[in-house]
Amino acid sequence: MEDNYLYQYSLLNALMDGVSESGVTVQKFLKKGNQGLGTFVRMNGELLSLDGTVYQLMAEGKVRKANPEDQIPFGICTHFAPQATKSVSLEDKTAIDRELDEFNSHSVNLFMTYRITGRFRSIKARTVRGQEYKGQPLSELGKKQYVNTFNDIEGTIVGFRSPKSWQGFSVAGEHLHFIDDSRQVGGHVLEVSAEEVTMSMAVASNIHVELPTSEDFNAAKLVMDDEGIKGVEG
Amino acid sequence: MEDNYLYQYSLLNALMDGVSESGVTVQKFLKKGNQGLGTFVRMNGELLSLDGTVYQLMAEGKVRKANPEDQIPFGICTHFAPQATKSVSLEDKTAIDRELDEFNSHSVNLFMTYRITGRFRSIKARTVRGQEYKGQPLSELGKKQYVNTFNDIEGTIVGFRSPKSWQGFSVAGEHLHFIDDSRQVGGHVLEVSAEEVTMSMAVASNIHVELPTSEDFNAAKLVMDDEGIKGVEG
Repeated sequence: MEDNYLYQYSLLNALMDGVSESGVTVQKFLKKGNQGLGTFVRMNGELLSLDGTVYQLMAEGKVRKANPEDQIPFGICTHFAPQATKSVSLEDKTAIDRELDEFNSHSVNLFMTYRITGRFRSIKARTVRGQEYKGQPLSELGKKQYVNTFNDIEGTIVGFRSPKSWQGFSVAGEHLHFIDDSRQVGGHVLEVSAEEVTMSMAVASNIHVELPTSEDFNAAKLVMDDEGIKGVEG
Repeated sequence: MEDNYLYQYSLLNALMDGVSESGVTVQKFLKKGNQGLGTFVRMNGELLSLDGTVYQLMAEGKVRKANPEDQIPFGICTHFAPQATKSVSLEDKTAIDRELDEFNSHSVNLFMTYRITGRFRSIKARTVRGQEYKGQPLSELGKKQYVNTFNDIEGTIVGFRSPKSWQGFSVAGEHLHFIDDSRQVGGHVLEVSAEEVTMSMAVASNIHVELPTSEDFNAAKLVMDDEGIKGVEG
């Protein structure tokens, strides 16, 4: 795939429906990009892909390197080639949106991908605990997520912004995961604040979606649940 | 692109919004597949791509070969590799759906692409007349379309079936265009009946969407208009 082309496996709506028994292998996912987000079988934790390694950010704060044969029921990634890099201060999560708009204000209906590195004042992150039974919907898991706040921590955020009209296919708006430099902690970012961190950005106007051919996916309703998505992925 | 991977330029919702001033060139579109559908700048007629040639099926029944530099504001295509071929009789358009289900009933949430060749008892087809002003929405154009019925005619149908959840991105359900063997007439198929024609089919679980980077696309609302789409693309 070309630089900044996005690869996405499955649809967010399928994950909302609890479809997470199988997926694309870590090995294949790594070939599609050097940065990415997603989750693992049975939604056991958060996935962050960074420069050739896929990390599993698990509840209770554990981090492990994924095996090549581990499967990813939902994920998005890209071969990231920054089109702009600058030092930014982030009062809160919405500041990321403003930086992206400032970088390119003609991308309302396009995707963005970015990376933020440096020392963060604070990051509030969650990790999903994994399904208690097959098919348990993500919205239900969101209510029992593990939340942690890290202060004065060095690390990397990998993020994707999807256009509003793609809600349900991807996560509309911001979707970002964090891992610290020691690869000990991380998660799906709920809140962030930082002074002078480095942000690299690119616009993405191409997306390759691979749909699962599993029976579970075939049986999924794939009905849009805007409130549900905002509740768990916001 | 691999066999039966779909390439789609823009989103149907953008076309519904009237975004059709520019697009992917015919030259590039032909590289993405040997069969496809779509439309031209300002929605001037219907597009059918077949084995290396892109045809413009225009109102009042004219057909011309498109130039390599002509632009396609919305189109879908694939390198078609049939997974099944059979002789079928089609009482009506819904019979196509039944044949696809019979071929593979586990593809409710996947795409299908197919080709039907032979002598058709009758085909009712429409061609859009083109925008009268910039940004005129497709739903409005649908009300003034040119409709013709061809009886006892030999030709080819190129078709795509998109999953229900992709309505607005593509045309949910069946979307098929026809051209006759002499390349004199054709259009967007509204009704069809045939006895013993040849139907080839394939499942498609990968789709590459390329989004326009134009100002028009950036300004598009991309709000779902299910009734509007069914009215004009049904």
